[in-house]
Amino acid sequence: MKTIFLTRRERFNAAHRMFRPEWDDAKNLEIFGKCSNPNWHGHNYTLFVTVKGELNPETGYVVNLKTLSKLINEVIIDKLDHKNINLEVDFMKGKIASSESIAISIWEQLEPHIKMMGIELHSIKLEETENNTIEYFG
Amino acid sequence: MKTIFLTRRERFNAAHRMFRPEWDDAKNLEIFGKCSNPNWHGHNYTLFVTVKGELNPETGYVVNLKTLSKLINEVIIDKLDHKNINLEVDFMKGKIASSESIAISIWEQLEPHIKMMGIELHSIKLEETENNTIEYFG
Amino acid sequence: MKTIFLTRRERFNAAHRMFRPEWDDAKNLEIFGKCSNPNWHGHNYTLFVTVKGELNPETGYVVNLKTLSKLINEVIIDKLDHKNINLEVDFMKGKIASSESIAISIWEQLEPHIKMMGIELHSIKLEETENNTIEYFG
Amino acid sequence: MKTIFLTRRERFNAAHRMFRPEWDDAKNLEIFGKCSNPNWHGHNYTLFVTVKGELNPETGYVVNLKTLSKLINEVIIDKLDHKNINLEVDFMKGKIASSESIAISIWEQLEPHIKMMGIELHSIKLEETENNTIEYFG
Amino acid sequence: MKTIFLTRRERFNAAHRMFRPEWDDAKNLEIFGKCSNPNWHGHNYTLFVTVKGELNPETGYVVNLKTLSKLINEVIIDKLDHKNINLEVDFMKGKIASSESIAISIWEQLEPHIKMMGIELHSIKLEETENNTIEYFG
Amino acid sequence: MKTIFLTRRERFNAAHRMFRPEWDDAKNLEIFGKCSNPNWHGHNYTLFVTVKGELNPETGYVVNLKTLSKLINEVIIDKLDHKNINLEVDFMKGKIASSESIAISIWEQLEPHIKMMGIELHSIKLEETENNTIEYFG
Repeated sequence: MKTIFLTRRERFNAAHRMFRPEWDDAKNLEIFGKCSNPNWHGHNYTLFVTVKGELNPETGYVVNLKTLSKLINEVIIDKLDHKNINLEVDFMKGKIASSESIAISIWEQLEPHIKMMGIELHSIKLEETENNTIEYFG
Repeated sequence: MKTIFLTRRERFNAAHRMFRPEWDDAKNLEIFGKCSNPNWHGHNYTLFVTVKGELNPETGYVVNLKTLSKLINEVIIDKLDHKNINLEVDFMKGKIASSESIAISIWEQLEPHIKMMGIELHSIKLEETENNTIEYFG
Repeated sequence: MKTIFLTRRERFNAAHRMFRPEWDDAKNLEIFGKCSNPNWHGHNYTLFVTVKGELNPETGYVVNLKTLSKLINEVIIDKLDHKNINLEVDFMKGKIASSESIAISIWEQLEPHIKMMGIELHSIKLEETENNTIEYFG
Repeated sequence: MKTIFLTRRERFNAAHRMFRPEWDDAKNLEIFGKCSNPNWHGHNYTLFVTVKGELNPETGYVVNLKTLSKLINEVIIDKLDHKNINLEVDFMKGKIASSESIAISIWEQLEPHIKMMGIELHSIKLEETENNTIEYFG
Repeated sequence: MKTIFLTRRERFNAAHRMFRPEWDDAKNLEIFGKCSNPNWHGHNYTLFVTVKGELNPETGYVVNLKTLSKLINEVIIDKLDHKNINLEVDFMKGKIASSESIAISIWEQLEPHIKMMGIELHSIKLEETENNTIEYFG
Repeated sequence: MKTIFLTRRERFNAAHRMFRPEWDDAKNLEIFGKCSNPNWHGHNYTLFVTVKGELNPETGYVVNLKTLSKLINEVIIDKLDHKNINLEVDFMKGKIASSESIAISIWEQLEPHIKMMGIELHSIKLEETENNTIEYFG
């Protein structure tokens, strides 16, 4: 049995801010710096979803990447792209909008769907800027 | 005399939305699509400032790139980075926050400073996403 | 009046070979080297379409980039992507399938459509590999 | 003992198509979509070969990267570059020309040679497009 | 408990040469090729520091990336950037200036500081050129 | 007649320092900062050579890119790669080793050779780091 890892890259552009509602602006500024700007800022996020599974010898695929891309877009990208992550994303409600927290939430949203395809979710990697990247393995 | 073109790359992360205040949300949505989201979205903008000038044979420079970078940061980046372009940027007040309009405004802000350095501003290039880039030559 | 240059990036994956039908394989091999392989080879082509026009002060746009992207996809990408450039692309019939020739043909296909949008086509840039790029200005 | 991982990047441009010879064109189209085009399409493939081994304290190397690159070129790149993967590559005969299958075959070709250098093959990563990447760990 | 991996990218430009002082130039040339040039050559090195730790539910962070970046700059980048690695870097004294050896030394310098932040150093990745990358996991 | 612009990318890794021999180290440090380090530093330089010419309808080429690449390597890259630009490069003798000056010198070296190929040299672009790029048009 040959185990293959596939990575699909998708992108979304969104606004967010770092803050805790129970802290005042001064405390949020102290902890989060300019990322706590009450008027928001934003990013071009790049998402890398890595799945793993056995090679299907009949198709040469583990999973059809178009199917995987469609799933990621329906379950994740459509909810995040051109949105305010703090205000508008159902699976981020009540959470801090850090990349770390977004990556974990993306894992939790995607994982049951990936499992239903008969493969495994291996990692969620989220690039916030060219210098800062988060990876979560469940 | 040898004319040299220098390009300095800088980056800023900001929130914005596309809309005209005299239009209602429906009209804004019709013209601007999801870019008009009233809750904002955002980007990692990449800015390329190109200047031109004669080579100084004594230093081998046209202008010291550290001086140029410091200027761009003070006049442009510090005002845009981690900001809401519609609400918080003085030189964007009353303008539509399109990349086209931002590029023109960056030109207008930078150009007098560049001239005072004895060189010429050649172009402002603004990359909004890996697929969409604006360039303005004054 | 403010003239703005917009560049839209699109991609296509295609097979091709370099050869002249009136030359035999030996002559084609001598002139074109391994690019003349009768069994084809292929590339991920990256296409940069640059248009120019005046800023519309009402929308902050020169042209809606989604409209431009849709046009490029319908007129160019759909005909080239996952195709054999020598055998299957109507606007390449009877032409050598070099990147130079493809870039010129893309210009000829796109230019009347761009003009009808009230803007001007400025350049067609075609990246064949990370080391080789062609640009055509009409 | 210090274990080091080295990754060497190499590139090849090739034509391929996805299909099973025992299926007709309609079935191939249903399963593989436009990737089954009988006239072929192609890619710029980027190959990342990662090896691991102990640091040689005398040379500061695990293995000379030029030797490793020469090996990858002789055993892999020369057979794939500017070729038709379905028709012309000995180690792909009778296999489906998916990136998954190519990555496994590259592993099988390279692994004995890497072992003879006294180091270990760790992974074969194959980037088919900027959005789709396969990795195989043996 | 959610374990997160964070990667911070930093860059430095430095000169180096590959050689063993107890070997003569001919022997150094034989083993190290043009990398042994007695007059030095240099690189733009890209450094990726990956740390891992538990998500702090209060801040949404594992560690503040600005703090991490400041540490990497003080302990590593300031000592390497615009320096001669063979002659001027205290933690490289008496070692061969290979990327393998630099990566191990960066690990040894950073690891105690990372531990004091209550997180773990996971890997040091050093990209010497676009084709050659070293990774060390301690 | 169709005018085509071709750009060939090549790379070299070299050591250099910024200084004027008639200035002392203090003056060099004041003007050039850490770039004046007497022990050298270095870069991965990326060179983009753009030529222009008429499409040859028989070959579909303006010039064979392999011939162009071979020329750039013989006349430029072999003299700069893994070298000390201040000490070892004949066409840089007596000049300041700034990217501006290197770009002009590369133009002067290449231009007669390009002319002999029946085409024109259009520009020399030299990327010193991801943030700093020089372009010279003769």
